[in-house]
Amino acid sequence: NFTRGMQTVTLIPGDGIGPEISSAVVKIFEAAKAPIQWEERNVTAIKGPGGKWMIPPEAKESMDRCKIGLKGPLKTPIAAGHPSMNLLLRKTFDLYANVRPCVSIEGYKTPYTDVNLVTIRENTEGEYSGIEHLIVDGVVQSIKLITEDASRRIAEYAFEYARNNNRNSVTAVHKANIMRMSDGLFLRKCREVAENFKDIKFTEMYLDTVCLNMVQDPSKFDVLVMPNLYGDILSDLCAGLIGGLGVTPSGNIGANGVAIFESVHGTAPDIAGLDLANPTALLLSAVMMLRHMGLHGYAQKIESACFDTIRDKKVLTGDLGGNSKCSDFTSEICRRVIDMD
Amino acid sequence: NFTRGMQTVTLIPGDGIGPEISSAVVKIFEAAKAPIQWEERNVTAIKGPGGKWMIPPEAKESMDRCKIGLKGPLKTPIAAGHPSMNLLLRKTFDLYANVRPCVSIEGYKTPYTDVNLVTIRENTEGEYSGIEHLIVDGVVQSIKLITEDASRRIAEYAFEYARNNNRNSVTAVHKANIMRMSDGLFLRKCREVAENFKDIKFTEMYLDTVCLNMVQDPSKFDVLVMPNLYGDILSDLCAGLIGGLGVTPSGNIGANGVAIFESVHGTAPDIAGLDLANPTALLLSAVMMLRHMGLHGYAQKIESACFDTIRDKKVLTGDLGGNSKCSDFTSEICRRVIDMD
Ligand SMILES: CC(C)[C@H](C(=O)O)[C@@H](O)C(=O)O
Ligand SMILES: CC(C)[C@H](C(=O)O)[C@@H](O)C(=O)O
Repeated sequence: NFTRGMQTVTLIPGDGIGPEISSAVVKIFEAAKAPIQWEERNVTAIKGPGGKWMIPPEAKESMDRCKIGLKGPLKTPIAAGHPSMNLLLRKTFDLYANVRPCVSIEGYKTPYTDVNLVTIRENTEGEYSGIEHLIVDGVVQSIKLITEDASRRIAEYAFEYARNNNRNSVTAVHKANIMRMSDGLFLRKCREVAENFKDIKFTEMYLDTVCLNMVQDPSKFDVLVMPNLYGDILSDLCAGLIGGLGVTPSGNIGANGVAIFESVHGTAPDIAGLDLANPTALLLSAVMMLRHMGLHGYAQKIESACFDTIRDKKVLTGDLGGNSKCSDFTSEICRRVIDMD
Repeated sequence: NFTRGMQTVTLIPGDGIGPEISSAVVKIFEAAKAPIQWEERNVTAIKGPGGKWMIPPEAKESMDRCKIGLKGPLKTPIAAGHPSMNLLLRKTFDLYANVRPCVSIEGYKTPYTDVNLVTIRENTEGEYSGIEHLIVDGVVQSIKLITEDASRRIAEYAFEYARNNNRNSVTAVHKANIMRMSDGLFLRKCREVAENFKDIKFTEMYLDTVCLNMVQDPSKFDVLVMPNLYGDILSDLCAGLIGGLGVTPSGNIGANGVAIFESVHGTAPDIAGLDLANPTALLLSAVMMLRHMGLHGYAQKIESACFDTIRDKKVLTGDLGGNSKCSDFTSEICRRVIDMD
């Protein structure tokens, strides 16, 4: 995996604005002399034996070898039965924890200034089981699957994360008043794991109450852990608090260090190729990746250069309130990265 | 149901602060000379034949006769297997539509000033089916049940509501990209019903996207319709935008005019009996009730008196930022109601 101290990472540029923002990240990493070698792979689902949709073997093989990936947005083809590529990737590599830090960005105005929280979403089961039935005509059921193992695993991840990232509390988000067995099981595992992390404060809250309190005072929250769908909802809500998906990083973490970091915004086909896209979400995801790899110095440098550029307000893409090109914004970050040396 | 032009309504004061805020509403209705006669009923669940929890017969009989109820907060006893009384009421009277208007209140500061939307939640099925199984040890499933009939019924309610309340658009909120069959069915029914309401704009959005956009710019939304759990989440989120459950009204609507209007905040046992509670949510729910009964003039008068009092900032309860008693706040609203004559 190492070439002269370099570590190889699978780069999945993705669709739409994906290639532009990916090459922005590559440039900034170069400027920072980050010891990363990129292995570019295309991820367009193909039909495997038996008609099952799968990740192209070249991409799969690269990820299996590199263990770590960075990916831009992928479009979901509308072919009937076609899975979301994002979900297929999470599933293929058993990336069980979806981690989204949401921290207020100085200089980027939203109604909130003091958001500093992390949502940790169970990424493999729950409402995303894909099991559905037609009972009789006009009556359909979807199955939410909660297991002891997946619940314990995500709870452990959340507490470990809190401890390793100097965070003080973990809140389990649930509706165990309604789904007593499934969310009840999830909650029980969180409580059990909490016993082993006496240094971290543990609380439990209903999802509806979290949403209400979140928009009233997000500063109350720290690390939040929850089943799949609740995480989907809450992570987007929290992204909204700090400025949207264009500035929010995300990581999908599996066992043994395997992980894919991704920007979770769309492919923005309307501005693709026009050098107008904002690479911030992908760049901050790449920064999460550097930290995951233990490359904290590089992470710090790139993150600061990005935040300084936004705070400074002189060179910003359109969605950030400026009128600079993606390439100018990228150059500005590179300049700052180089200046730090 | 009518005594000298009076209409009888079942009043369920509820627990904790329930009696105080209920008597505040009764006083304000008296001051407004609203033609309502209250029939007070206790709702503490009792065990019926076969051990099933049920509403006390006196309360059930009253509601069956009056058709319309106003209720304060009810505590959910922690006895094993005990249902939420709120859910039991919705179920007992088949109150299939939960309606929560969220409108910014002038003078009550939140990060948002231009919220003016209504969440319409399917209230009878979905994730609240109560069907759960232990598959094998450590593996649990909860069933989300979506039916054609309930989906069509709630969609029709939402479009009728939009038309009758001079609203322009209905947005169906879903995750049909994940729950293709269940949310897919819900969405299909919304689309079908939309065909019959060409005067109302119809859009569809993913729940996560709605949450994100909601905290960024709630003014974009009008009427939102959605399955049960999504409504639970989104209605609380939206309540947060305008100041919380203390100021948010709610109505549960069934067939043939049957309806229960309720404040959805808790019983606040810590301040119960201290004359400190804020009756606004229950009062505004009672105003919704008046409109439901066609008593628009009384509704208008009481609502204005309440909003004027809040805007004026002189007599406010603690949670609204003042230090007046519940009884003073109530008297101030009464005074304004009387002055309007
Ligand atoms: C793309 C979509 C299937 C996905 C989800 O629902 O999980 C997205 O919303 C996300 O949060 O990553
Ligand atoms: C009390 C509780 C069971 C209820 C729910 O989950 O529906 C509440 O949150 C609501 O929104 O009315």
